[in-house]
Amino acid sequence: MTRQEIEALIDSRTVAYIASVDGEGFPNLKAMLAPRVREGLRTFYFTTNTHSMRVEQYRRDPKAAIYFCDEDGFRGVMLRGEMETLTDARSRELIWREGDTEYYPLGVTDPDYCVLRFTARDGRTYAGYDSENFVIA
Amino acid sequence: MTRQEIEALIDSRTVAYIASVDGEGFPNLKAMLAPRVREGLRTFYFTTNTHSMRVEQYRRDPKAAIYFCDEDGFRGVMLRGEMETLTDARSRELIWREGDTEYYPLGVTDPDYCVLRFTARDGRTYAGYDSENFVIA
Repeated sequence: MTRQEIEALIDSRTVAYIASVDGEGFPNLKAMLAPRVREGLRTFYFTTNTHSMRVEQYRRDPKAAIYFCDEDGFRGVMLRGEMETLTDARSRELIWREGDTEYYPLGVTDPDYCVLRFTARDGRTYAGYDSENFVIA
Repeated sequence: MTRQEIEALIDSRTVAYIASVDGEGFPNLKAMLAPRVREGLRTFYFTTNTHSMRVEQYRRDPKAAIYFCDEDGFRGVMLRGEMETLTDARSRELIWREGDTEYYPLGVTDPDYCVLRFTARDGRTYAGYDSENFVIA
């Protein structure tokens, strides 16, 4: 897959899958709403709840992977890197959207509103039965 | 989610997401074809390639998670457990299907045909913004 195809696949998804390692050494994974902000293939911002299990896991071990999948086209992209949990004003404001008060009634400063910032170091594409590693420039 | 709802969600999916931990301690995840055989919520059998990266990772560290997601319904089920890589005749025959010679030209004894058997210990359901742990009976 070309870089352009990888970015198009990512942007076409409404859901991202994110993985962490828990305190007992097991991988965990779940679906998330697609990232709100993406900077190339390097940085991705997601919203989450400050008191979620994922935040607790990433605070203990920031190693992470995110995955975007076109199930019908048998294509996927995994990015491997580190996840930070951010609650500073700048990060909160960067990805805040108007309707978010539905989930965070106190607004952009709601203590349960938290930003996940993923920074990729490398990746792997899956297309049919082929897979290929790539480095993030 | 009830046990019945969890099983219905799993059986409705054509794709499963599986996670492992790699040699550098990073979680990895990818989409797989849905399990060929499921025994309750305890045991799941998948096909894979003997020389795949996933097999190598599970042989080093069998800790695993599998995840089924109904993206449109905002519901998901994660199961946490251990993954075995099996190449014995009984396991191979259990999940072999006629058309598989397309991928494994040498048939059920093809050295590149491998069975992944996942055994769950516990799980977590996600429905909307709620999540709940459960134990496998």
